[in-house]
Amino acid sequence: MSSFGRLFRVTTFGESHCKGVGAIIDGVPPGLELTEADIQPQLTRRRPGQSKLTTPRDEKDTVVIQSGTERGVTLGTPISVFVPNENVRPQDYSEMSNVPRPGHADYTYQMKYGTRASSGGGRASARETIGRVAAGAIAEKWLKQKFDTQIVSWVSSIGHVDMPMPALNISTSTPLFTREDVDRLGTLRILQIPGQTEAEFVKSIDLKAPAYLDTNNVVYNRQGDVLPTPANLQALLTDDLVPVRCPHPPSACAMATVIRECKADADSIGGTVTCVIRNAAVGWGEPCFDKMQAMLAHAMLSLPAVKGFQYGSGFEGTRQRGSTHNDAFCTGSNGRLNVVKNDAGGVLGGITSGADIYFKIAVKAVSTIGQAQDTVDFDGNSTVLEAKGRHDPCVLPRVPPLVESMSSLVLADLAMLQLARENYF
Amino acid sequence: MSSFGRLFRVTTFGESHCKGVGAIIDGVPPGLELTEADIQPQLTRRRPGQSKLTTPRDEKDTVVIQSGTERGVTLGTPISVFVPNENVRPQDYSEMSNVPRPGHADYTYQMKYGTRASSGGGRASARETIGRVAAGAIAEKWLKQKFDTQIVSWVSSIGHVDMPMPALNISTSTPLFTREDVDRLGTLRILQIPGQTEAEFVKSIDLKAPAYLDTNNVVYNRQGDVLPTPANLQALLTDDLVPVRCPHPPSACAMATVIRECKADADSIGGTVTCVIRNAAVGWGEPCFDKMQAMLAHAMLSLPAVKGFQYGSGFEGTRQRGSTHNDAFCTGSNGRLNVVKNDAGGVLGGITSGADIYFKIAVKAVSTIGQAQDTVDFDGNSTVLEAKGRHDPCVLPRVPPLVESMSSLVLADLAMLQLARENYF
Amino acid sequence: MSSFGRLFRVTTFGESHCKGVGAIIDGVPPGLELTEADIQPQLTRRRPGQSKLTTPRDEKDTVVIQSGTERGVTLGTPISVFVPNENVRPQDYSEMSNVPRPGHADYTYQMKYGTRASSGGGRASARETIGRVAAGAIAEKWLKQKFDTQIVSWVSSIGHVDMPMPALNISTSTPLFTREDVDRLGTLRILQIPGQTEAEFVKSIDLKAPAYLDTNNVVYNRQGDVLPTPANLQALLTDDLVPVRCPHPPSACAMATVIRECKADADSIGGTVTCVIRNAAVGWGEPCFDKMQAMLAHAMLSLPAVKGFQYGSGFEGTRQRGSTHNDAFCTGSNGRLNVVKNDAGGVLGGITSGADIYFKIAVKAVSTIGQAQDTVDFDGNSTVLEAKGRHDPCVLPRVPPLVESMSSLVLADLAMLQLARENYF
Amino acid sequence: MSSFGRLFRVTTFGESHCKGVGAIIDGVPPGLELTEADIQPQLTRRRPGQSKLTTPRDEKDTVVIQSGTERGVTLGTPISVFVPNENVRPQDYSEMSNVPRPGHADYTYQMKYGTRASSGGGRASARETIGRVAAGAIAEKWLKQKFDTQIVSWVSSIGHVDMPMPALNISTSTPLFTREDVDRLGTLRILQIPGQTEAEFVKSIDLKAPAYLDTNNVVYNRQGDVLPTPANLQALLTDDLVPVRCPHPPSACAMATVIRECKADADSIGGTVTCVIRNAAVGWGEPCFDKMQAMLAHAMLSLPAVKGFQYGSGFEGTRQRGSTHNDAFCTGSNGRLNVVKNDAGGVLGGITSGADIYFKIAVKAVSTIGQAQDTVDFDGNSTVLEAKGRHDPCVLPRVPPLVESMSSLVLADLAMLQLARENYF
Repeated sequence: MSSFGRLFRVTTFGESHCKGVGAIIDGVPPGLELTEADIQPQLTRRRPGQSKLTTPRDEKDTVVIQSGTERGVTLGTPISVFVPNENVRPQDYSEMSNVPRPGHADYTYQMKYGTRASSGGGRASARETIGRVAAGAIAEKWLKQKFDTQIVSWVSSIGHVDMPMPALNISTSTPLFTREDVDRLGTLRILQIPGQTEAEFVKSIDLKAPAYLDTNNVVYNRQGDVLPTPANLQALLTDDLVPVRCPHPPSACAMATVIRECKADADSIGGTVTCVIRNAAVGWGEPCFDKMQAMLAHAMLSLPAVKGFQYGSGFEGTRQRGSTHNDAFCTGSNGRLNVVKNDAGGVLGGITSGADIYFKIAVKAVSTIGQAQDTVDFDGNSTVLEAKGRHDPCVLPRVPPLVESMSSLVLADLAMLQLARENYF
Repeated sequence: MSSFGRLFRVTTFGESHCKGVGAIIDGVPPGLELTEADIQPQLTRRRPGQSKLTTPRDEKDTVVIQSGTERGVTLGTPISVFVPNENVRPQDYSEMSNVPRPGHADYTYQMKYGTRASSGGGRASARETIGRVAAGAIAEKWLKQKFDTQIVSWVSSIGHVDMPMPALNISTSTPLFTREDVDRLGTLRILQIPGQTEAEFVKSIDLKAPAYLDTNNVVYNRQGDVLPTPANLQALLTDDLVPVRCPHPPSACAMATVIRECKADADSIGGTVTCVIRNAAVGWGEPCFDKMQAMLAHAMLSLPAVKGFQYGSGFEGTRQRGSTHNDAFCTGSNGRLNVVKNDAGGVLGGITSGADIYFKIAVKAVSTIGQAQDTVDFDGNSTVLEAKGRHDPCVLPRVPPLVESMSSLVLADLAMLQLARENYF
Repeated sequence: MSSFGRLFRVTTFGESHCKGVGAIIDGVPPGLELTEADIQPQLTRRRPGQSKLTTPRDEKDTVVIQSGTERGVTLGTPISVFVPNENVRPQDYSEMSNVPRPGHADYTYQMKYGTRASSGGGRASARETIGRVAAGAIAEKWLKQKFDTQIVSWVSSIGHVDMPMPALNISTSTPLFTREDVDRLGTLRILQIPGQTEAEFVKSIDLKAPAYLDTNNVVYNRQGDVLPTPANLQALLTDDLVPVRCPHPPSACAMATVIRECKADADSIGGTVTCVIRNAAVGWGEPCFDKMQAMLAHAMLSLPAVKGFQYGSGFEGTRQRGSTHNDAFCTGSNGRLNVVKNDAGGVLGGITSGADIYFKIAVKAVSTIGQAQDTVDFDGNSTVLEAKGRHDPCVLPRVPPLVESMSSLVLADLAMLQLARENYF
Repeated sequence: MSSFGRLFRVTTFGESHCKGVGAIIDGVPPGLELTEADIQPQLTRRRPGQSKLTTPRDEKDTVVIQSGTERGVTLGTPISVFVPNENVRPQDYSEMSNVPRPGHADYTYQMKYGTRASSGGGRASARETIGRVAAGAIAEKWLKQKFDTQIVSWVSSIGHVDMPMPALNISTSTPLFTREDVDRLGTLRILQIPGQTEAEFVKSIDLKAPAYLDTNNVVYNRQGDVLPTPANLQALLTDDLVPVRCPHPPSACAMATVIRECKADADSIGGTVTCVIRNAAVGWGEPCFDKMQAMLAHAMLSLPAVKGFQYGSGFEGTRQRGSTHNDAFCTGSNGRLNVVKNDAGGVLGGITSGADIYFKIAVKAVSTIGQAQDTVDFDGNSTVLEAKGRHDPCVLPRVPPLVESMSSLVLADLAMLQLARENYF
């Protein structure tokens, strides 16, 4: 179905080639200052065309609030947001009509509904996520105001390039870098490097060099001014860069290279995104079925192309023994307890403990590729499919706003459920 | 909340130390033959005490159907199932009352609800899953009758011991082994090996030996009579074995060894469980928020101790390029299409394609361990916690029925939603 | 909340003075021919300004389908409908800002949300119902196609003027008059009567005259061409009439008179609306909580100004003994049974029996009146409130499309739930 | 479906002739003192066999709390309640098996589910309401503790006997009589009247005598000790009386007579129940679809045999003009406003205003009667049905606990939704 959440509830609509996409957000707290300016930034981060590394489609994705606010303040009534489709070109997809694209939902939509949009994907298109992102931006603003909740996600791997992580267990004592850090540092000027060919540039990036790995820590400390990166990398950190959204410059550089190689090959590549949520209050999550991690997993796996979700120690944590995995408690602030480490990922028994929530998702390579593919048409006849339409070699840089938005929706809803409970007596 | 599903909907209740646990299952098809005998087997597989490798608690977990059937046939009305708690010993937990157990939900339950069961976990206990398993057994029976849907899961790793997988992409051309295979082959007689010490036995298992890896395939072919296992392993396949629920004997053997080592150390260990669903019809899953994988992830992450979920190619698949990841279509039977391989895991755009659904979940080590743990009490005072209660070194062998049951609940619900649609005109 | 329904689910948005109002309709059957032309007629029937008897506001209420269809056919994806607010005049309401209007929701909205729209009512405005009407029109089209379900409602009383009903128990052997009948016959030319003053005209209408009562039957037989009405009434049945939506001309005439008197007095008046649903299939309704009548009552009482709901024999039926109230069964067609009479109102045990569903709702007088009212402001200070804004003396003629739409939403949803069940084996 | 509510959510199960009936109540506030003693009284008021006027079945309906509490305090986890069926006699119904009983749900259950319980009604039986009453008792206890909410309902008519109401608009300045008043005063010793035949007694009751009408007021003032009733009526007010649950003695007496007449005729009779809710906080109700009155109507119409619902001025109020219907505001206490009268019934725009909520429901005559009825069997063959089973001539005296319980469920749920909102900033 097209709705998500109980108290903070979003319902989305829209395909790639109809009049527009959007959402109704029900349950937004009344009295919240809210204008389009609170929503647009995440939409802009989400939209294609922002970078040479991603899709050439230049959709402006300008959001309009149609209801639920007056004089810039929410009324407590449903908020409708709308983003028109400005670049509708169904003819791009016309030739595919009888061939279900491998990896896409053309076949299953046709079988499920007995029809499908001419664009094939319809609601399986990434464009469907616009309504979510808009809704998430509202949820996030409220979470920030009420709880000072911070939600940051970044690209942690693309293909075989993994950003070195200090550890899976995020420590609450480390200042969390911000989305601005993610956008700023995770950027690379690929084509305009003066006096250097692409090959030379790529060659200069050596992830295995100890120097690079050492310098990573400085990123996590947010002290960009003393970042001791090599000269040629430092030079790249200027305003006209395009973002990979990996906050570790050497990794981001290598990732960008992978993306460009895929683009050159008319191919695509997947990756992972990591998200950290700081200042979730204690007590969020509704056992037994609507545990925090269950709702996050639901939310993440509802995003296009996501193939996996793990939180806390995740799959690797299954190797650990209980004696090392268990998070001992220690004294915290405000009469509450902390955990010494945080392999649990901020959740115990499905309920937030107050420690950072962190999780990672797997995002597969985009299914639309420029290469010819041997497949069959709907009638079972062999054919060769060659996409003519616009496509991204890698959507990973556009995924963080989706992850942050869906996280916000989950958190706001579970927070509200607990806020009710806190008033019971 | 305590309900799951829309049309096939289960609501559970019960803690470890109240009168009993159970569920109401609403939306069960009328006219289905159903008695306790359809439910008990999965409950028995789930319950502790079935093996020397797991918990010593011997709860009988005998289910009673309280409503919704007459003369062994369902009426279409809600089915209530009840399993009494026969072994209530709250005193075991009394001393823990002021110390939140590391890794457990004592702290978060107390903070969320302002109170908690004396047993600490309360609803975070694995005992809560009994209602789910009972409900799942009903769902599964219907799925089997209506669609011939088969759902099998097994332990695919414990600690660092991974069962070798032929590939992540399950092929529909290979007969799937059954739960009986899982229970039968995944067994080991550890203590009664004639003329061999435990150490000698363990030593004899060499997962790296090519001979072992070759012989693995025979397992997948279900031809147990020609299983060319080494003599000492073959000898183990008798009736008095205890199950690890890994269908690959050499792996199961090594896993059992790991479990016994943890038990000896008063420690615990995690692992993973893999599940395959065959004969899901085409068209199940409700985009955009209730995609098949989203509901499965929600269901799995709602289970105690589960830290991750991936389906199809999962996290490893993110390394692949689109050109190799995309599943090309080929001609299938009944006017439908197949996929050549199945990296998508049986789902395209959140909707089942008819190919096998397969996924893997991560299960962390049990939090209750016999070792003393340094921690603090609710007031923040340092203390040492040493569990006196009963506990399992490894719950993995008991997880498959949980996974199969929750999968059944997801599938039945999404199948029903699609069955409505198929009648629309 | 702003959503209604489970499988056929509408979510509405919009206040009187924001950019517009509308809805997302989720769960619409794919493959249904649908354009704005299917929705507009009911919106037009609903909108004010269609008659001299009702509000002078001339909002065009032109609907746009924003998503979910392609080439005039539904895709099975959410349908977004939007109707812009064209006549936003918030200044009309500015002076009321500190005085909660008696009978309105200004006070409760302010207390509930801590804020409210400057128009006072906000979502309590009748304009909120536009999204419902649009959604209902879609539901109704499908019901008509799939089941030949007919839904007709009409004004059955205004003030003390009751339309004479043949009986509360609608017989299935009588052809049901149509909406066109309701709109056409239930009309009166008030101001343009040639050669007759208003007073003379009103005087000529004598509801107690047997001649009038006898001639009523012809209306129910749909044989307008032989309608033996008195000459002065017959003369009124021309195209330029304005509708009261009472299908009984003498009653409609008297009702119109009541409305005009209220208008002259700057006052308002309530009434009742009766609805008949023919060709609901057998088996709709989901006990125990979502019985057909429970969902209809929920739907009707969610409409602004509705104060009561009764179905079948209703309140008067409570006077009857069981021996006279019980509907005996008789042989029907298609191997099904009929009921001899239908005091049950088409529902037994919450499930449709195949007989006509009929119900009546109470609609109170509009709260906005032109008369000065003694009341207090939000601070408790005595004041006199005199409405300057536009208002209707009687909304009853605009209620039938609301009733029909909400009925359609209930029926479609419950029908879909049963369609799933019919496919279970 | 079998669930009701969002945050305070009940799911029921059970038929007349299975092992028992009950419910799971999810969302109960943790820390609430709760034992069976809090639930049993309303169950006892609900159960048949309590009076000579109602059914002879003597089911004890003893409730057991199976989960969710510890040491008499709720844990915040689901509470399971169970009431065994002690008097299962399916053979009573065996002869009816091929004849759908007129007015019952046998036919529609059979058509909807393709099967039905041998008892015919199954879930359409009044016994299904036990789970609701138990759940409602918990909700009510919390409402009383948190808001001092009082909920009282009584029989306001049986057949043609209407209890004279001071007015439909309940005034908040009048002390509300209690359930104890309802049970105590609304009682009549019918058979043991010393020195008077039944006929003489009935004859002595003259509802039209002004003396009686005057004395009614004293009932509403709760001053039973000065009740100036005629001597023969006063004498009846002793402990061994049987309750009609009408708090107006003369009316109760006349009602009892009607019931006995129906019993003598092997017939049954309907009536109405009025409910008043005092101290609902301001702000409950969730527009636009889940308005307070919509949820109450849904709840009431989900009860067996209920044919109508009206609140505030109801159907009669539609005769009023706006100028007389509108409730002007006046200064209240605690910085809040009151309404001068309360035709709105305590709700404005779907949201509680703080004034008393009051509503009335219509309950039809019980369908099971002892008289022979001409009808047809499932195959359409004419037959005569004569009920042999136990049955009540009038269920009205047992309806108040159902109404109070369903009201409590609605109020608790909507209160919780608003409590969340009050914590938003």
